[in-house]
Amino acid sequence: MSVGLSEPSRLIPVKGVKLAVGHAGIKKNSVKNDLVLFQLGEQATVAAVFTTNKFCAAPVTIAKRHLQHNNATRYLLINSGNANAGTGEQGIQSALSTCQAVAAEANADETEVLPFSTGVIGAQLPHHKIELVIPSLFQDLKEDNWLAAAKGIMTTDTLPKAASRQLTINGKVVTITGICKGSGMIKPDMATMLGYVATDAVISKQALSVCLKQAVDVSFNCISVDGDTSTNDACILIATGSSAVEVDDSNKEFMQALLEVFQQLAQSIIRDGEGATKFVTIQVEQATSQQDARELAYTIAHSPLVKTALFASDANWGRILAAIGRAPVSSLEIDQVDLFLGDVCLIEKGLPHPDYTEQKGQDVMKQQDITIRVNLNIGDAAATIWTTDLSYDYVKINAEYRS
Amino acid sequence: MSVGLSEPSRLIPVKGVKLAVGHAGIKKNSVKNDLVLFQLGEQATVAAVFTTNKFCAAPVTIAKRHLQHNNATRYLLINSGNANAGTGEQGIQSALSTCQAVAAEANADETEVLPFSTGVIGAQLPHHKIELVIPSLFQDLKEDNWLAAAKGIMTTDTLPKAASRQLTINGKVVTITGICKGSGMIKPDMATMLGYVATDAVISKQALSVCLKQAVDVSFNCISVDGDTSTNDACILIATGSSAVEVDDSNKEFMQALLEVFQQLAQSIIRDGEGATKFVTIQVEQATSQQDARELAYTIAHSPLVKTALFASDANWGRILAAIGRAPVSSLEIDQVDLFLGDVCLIEKGLPHPDYTEQKGQDVMKQQDITIRVNLNIGDAAATIWTTDLSYDYVKINAEYRS
Repeated sequence: MSVGLSEPSRLIPVKGVKLAVGHAGIKKNSVKNDLVLFQLGEQATVAAVFTTNKFCAAPVTIAKRHLQHNNATRYLLINSGNANAGTGEQGIQSALSTCQAVAAEANADETEVLPFSTGVIGAQLPHHKIELVIPSLFQDLKEDNWLAAAKGIMTTDTLPKAASRQLTINGKVVTITGICKGSGMIKPDMATMLGYVATDAVISKQALSVCLKQAVDVSFNCISVDGDTSTNDACILIATGSSAVEVDDSNKEFMQALLEVFQQLAQSIIRDGEGATKFVTIQVEQATSQQDARELAYTIAHSPLVKTALFASDANWGRILAAIGRAPVSSLEIDQVDLFLGDVCLIEKGLPHPDYTEQKGQDVMKQQDITIRVNLNIGDAAATIWTTDLSYDYVKINAEYRS
Repeated sequence: MSVGLSEPSRLIPVKGVKLAVGHAGIKKNSVKNDLVLFQLGEQATVAAVFTTNKFCAAPVTIAKRHLQHNNATRYLLINSGNANAGTGEQGIQSALSTCQAVAAEANADETEVLPFSTGVIGAQLPHHKIELVIPSLFQDLKEDNWLAAAKGIMTTDTLPKAASRQLTINGKVVTITGICKGSGMIKPDMATMLGYVATDAVISKQALSVCLKQAVDVSFNCISVDGDTSTNDACILIATGSSAVEVDDSNKEFMQALLEVFQQLAQSIIRDGEGATKFVTIQVEQATSQQDARELAYTIAHSPLVKTALFASDANWGRILAAIGRAPVSSLEIDQVDLFLGDVCLIEKGLPHPDYTEQKGQDVMKQQDITIRVNLNIGDAAATIWTTDLSYDYVKINAEYRS
């Protein structure tokens, strides 16, 4: 089940990136592809952000270590079905071993390979199974393999997630294409998500990091399904340089297109959220700080009572008020708060709006896409985040995940 | 459904407290009693703690105001079925009006009456219905009405919650009896709960506040069903003085009995948690501060992924590790962390324990009462909290609450 999400249609290849997919049988009884290999051109620059979870997974440790080397990143190896997290020193060795296998096949250094894993935590990675498939991956590398790659990194996702944009800069076409996965354990500072976005623009390593941070801050760091941060989150931005168009984060058209790709990817994770039946946008306006605005938005987004009311299409605004009232914010004046459901005003200056009727609230709540807007009327900071409702299916999916 | 909870058997009356119950029909189509009146002896002292939610309900505002008067508290009026929260000035007037009705019948001042409400947020309180029943409440006042009162304050609770203790101090018997309600929207700093505990000891108003704070800190402030704090929470401690035994918070035997009553009440709320199928104790030990210990315990307790794994009896310790790793604590050394499920060690010094097997984890998870113990091994602070799993029924109860 997903909310207004369909399989991506047109994914534009990015010159300088080739992809391959394969089946290693990492998860028992699964026939889906579970391995993806990215091969990047020699000129490519790479920027990365990782989970803030202190129990980070082995591949995160290795990827960070390899990124610190002077060697360029040439290969990304991603497996689904096993997170290689909570696996101790053996897990580190397994992640390294898969990098070495890719490096051997490519005649490269192991530090040119970044490993990524997603799936069940706490089981050792069957790295031999992966290594057996690596040679065949090298036979499958092609530029037009983005959709297959999007499918290969899926875990509880019901649909592949991808986005593409093209724009013209100085008369030349620049392409941006990305894929991601994730549908539960989604929260700020990296969800249980893996995201890979590539462009053929020429961007310095330093500028690329700035572009990535800006894009992530208004996309993947603005979504939440259940408030859980994973051990494995990673988001990678690649600039292959194949278009010969030089840009950096000061190029507005490029940044706009990049943000669109990131936001479409991030929102597709929410639209495919575990058990999601609603796509919910929470906007907090006129707060005294951005942190307050975000904290308040997340307090509403994480309230199981608000989420179950959304699932029931019940305009139970009392639960939203209660969430606002307990949010850990530095400034809040109850008698200044306005609350809107879509365009319908429920609370004005802290009190029920005289024109509000249950019917009006119900009409908004019945829709698939719902906006909850809170105006604190005490400052000029704002934040927008995206979340889902809490359904029977969320419980079902997460109760039965390992069985 | 509840976890190891049954209807209270022996509730010992407290001399100096009379109770009455009645039916005002506040919630449509409900035949259960929804009104409770406490009458306190003239010598009684009263201490109170209230919700920290900034959107506090009208009765909370009025109760706080009345407690600031010099007049003693003589009456507590509690209704279930309507929270009188988010109801603006009209709600304040309704709460006041019910106090005036009690005062008129008792020939007392309205400030001698404290109002309490629990139920749906955002609907105006049908105070006329309540006021019509008040005269008959005065006919029903009796000392042996605690169980009926426990039933009268229930909302989504499936069982009444109460506890009694007696102890002998200087050869005289002292009684402590209490009731409470609450089963969802339960989190620290007062859950959606109302609690009323009375003793016939003689305790000064000042000492009584200290006793109440100490008791609440290790009971009602240590439970969490879903992380939501209500607009209406209140806990009241009454000392009638009828036993003529003077005590204060330095009396160890008395405090022990008082804490037992409070903890039994608090735990009964968790055992009757909405949709609960497990009673979960989370112990965090050897943290560098009590705040860290509590934050870490609550991060585990509020993780929907941990809660659904508990529901599924799935020893998915990866989710517990992920929760520990993202907890907002000041000090955490991953390679020092020990994790136990019951007596079974899953993680030792940050790594999977070599003797751990899925079967051992499963055996613990299948039980109704489960203890998750985390030893951080870096300090000497500890915290214990109690919570539940997240089941289909939690979603069902909260999705259908108003229908």
